[in-house]
Amino acid sequence: MIFSYKRLFDFTYSVFINIGCSNEHASLAARVLLSADLRGIDSHGIARLSGYIRLWDAERVNPKPAIKVIHETPSTAVVDGDKGLGLVVAPFAMKIAIEKAEACGTGWVSVKNSNHYGIAGYHAMMALEKDMIGISMTNASALVAPTFSTERMLGTNPICVAIPAGEQPPFVADFATTTAANGKLEILQRKGAPMPVGWGQTPDGGETTDANILKEGGALLPLGSDREHSSHKGYALGSIVDIFSAVLSGASYGPWAPPFPAYVPMPANMPGEGLGHFFGAMRIDAFRPAEEFKLHMDNWINRFRQAKPVSPDQPVLIPGDPEREFEEIRMKQGIPLLEPVVNDLKQIAERFGISL
Amino acid sequence: MIFSYKRLFDFTYSVFINIGCSNEHASLAARVLLSADLRGIDSHGIARLSGYIRLWDAERVNPKPAIKVIHETPSTAVVDGDKGLGLVVAPFAMKIAIEKAEACGTGWVSVKNSNHYGIAGYHAMMALEKDMIGISMTNASALVAPTFSTERMLGTNPICVAIPAGEQPPFVADFATTTAANGKLEILQRKGAPMPVGWGQTPDGGETTDANILKEGGALLPLGSDREHSSHKGYALGSIVDIFSAVLSGASYGPWAPPFPAYVPMPANMPGEGLGHFFGAMRIDAFRPAEEFKLHMDNWINRFRQAKPVSPDQPVLIPGDPEREFEEIRMKQGIPLLEPVVNDLKQIAERFGISL
Repeated sequence: MIFSYKRLFDFTYSVFINIGCSNEHASLAARVLLSADLRGIDSHGIARLSGYIRLWDAERVNPKPAIKVIHETPSTAVVDGDKGLGLVVAPFAMKIAIEKAEACGTGWVSVKNSNHYGIAGYHAMMALEKDMIGISMTNASALVAPTFSTERMLGTNPICVAIPAGEQPPFVADFATTTAANGKLEILQRKGAPMPVGWGQTPDGGETTDANILKEGGALLPLGSDREHSSHKGYALGSIVDIFSAVLSGASYGPWAPPFPAYVPMPANMPGEGLGHFFGAMRIDAFRPAEEFKLHMDNWINRFRQAKPVSPDQPVLIPGDPEREFEEIRMKQGIPLLEPVVNDLKQIAERFGISL
Repeated sequence: MIFSYKRLFDFTYSVFINIGCSNEHASLAARVLLSADLRGIDSHGIARLSGYIRLWDAERVNPKPAIKVIHETPSTAVVDGDKGLGLVVAPFAMKIAIEKAEACGTGWVSVKNSNHYGIAGYHAMMALEKDMIGISMTNASALVAPTFSTERMLGTNPICVAIPAGEQPPFVADFATTTAANGKLEILQRKGAPMPVGWGQTPDGGETTDANILKEGGALLPLGSDREHSSHKGYALGSIVDIFSAVLSGASYGPWAPPFPAYVPMPANMPGEGLGHFFGAMRIDAFRPAEEFKLHMDNWINRFRQAKPVSPDQPVLIPGDPEREFEEIRMKQGIPLLEPVVNDLKQIAERFGISL
């Protein structure tokens, strides 16, 4: 079933209004959430709306947060999200990073006491129109086992780096620090299909192709999959995201990161408050004239597009290409939703007495 | 054959003096180069000394560089390395990042017109004693094929992030953005052993276990190894390092990065000057009190050390553990060198009339 962006936006906005968000926050949260659906990252979009509502039901989300800066220097800030939706806390924090960069070249903001923030890319890409490089990362519920471990210690902890270009579209790398994001497993689960070896492991650390392995106590694997293929590097990357987002800000980290599913009890003895994020903005002209940089980015992108392909029907891609193509198509033709997602939305519509 | 650190330091220092470095630069270059041997990253240490000399012979390295800041803001700078040894240009730039961080919370320095800078870790770790997080990355000669390509477009482009702790040793993640660093292939070449599938590819993009595949026109693979295991993420990471280090500074990027082997001709139509690096320093107390942060880092590290292991004889490691153990052992017991490396050093000793 295909829905126009406008229709899903109006619905999502109404839902956020119904849980008590201000107009401004409801509109922003809807825009951030749906940017995932537009960009083809279906697992992080409207499919999660019911999850956010369950967090609100469980009083883990504050719909009227007093988001504030609690510490700052000329180039840094720490933001307390006041248990707000990450979907509104994150743009608030990224805006501060951008303002700091305007004033002194770069801005870096670590956030505590937040919730899931949608796709990393939305926030990083806010920097592009200011001729800045944008950086965004977040910790998340623990689903990933470090190298040599059977225990879930880290989230899929994504990173996005968005870099402006000139004639070319921007370079936007937005990726989980695991071999496969959880959303990819969910797609295979729906199909009843196996997953490749190296995406996850069994509860005792063995190989598996079972896409349901997380439900059986298994874990996702860090980028690299196994020690021989340098999973310790994916583990290090996920750890850096966790530390920048949560240890630097005072959020809860590692296995104590608050779970997204509201039915999972909060971890005992949490060492910090809520989820954490980390944002950066670097003004291009804090390094070299922006026009000069953009000419070279165009040259970089053109050269990589022309890199000799293994097969003539699959040219080399630039990070951000697939998501941008999705966005162009879906903005025109609408967003396809799976039946279980539509049913979920219908239940929400009924509960709040609004139309889908 | 085992050599004391002191003996190798004195030798390396003399060699750098003999190619025309100042006392200060020779001493710094020797310290940075040998930090690789101490930390067990043998491929980046004294084994490369003859390579640096060949670059000097080819007049690609300036032993008396006038390294200078050519652009700056309160939190950023661009450094021109004046074709100096990366071994001295990099600490100069990292020092500026640290000074910027002292003044305004964080400091970010992009460097052009440099050469190979040894291990990424040395420079990032300079921040630790100042209670700062240190970040270091560099581009390098193109050996790596992007996802879907057969062409060498990126270097092994390493990243290091060094994070201070309290009672615990610091967290130091220092890794190439490829599945395997070239040094690992060199070890297998010496043994005549095959390499695992997923480390490299044949000239037409096929699977291989031939550790000599680079000599036959093949390529290293980005972290992730193949598309199914998210090599596009390793490709994105290597690209980010290339852009931050070289496009931001005005160095030569992508397939135009200057080659380390002096016998390889410089690429035609280079779009920038020399190799590029990128450094960052973030004052911990620009985010939260350093003592508080360090207590939480100790807690983070302790918890990850206790993560349930797959096998009881291989506990979970913290990034930096293996290198620190090497350093403790080798500082006491000396640095083992392979026969071809010792022969190389003997030739250098003879050439300059110094003793090994």
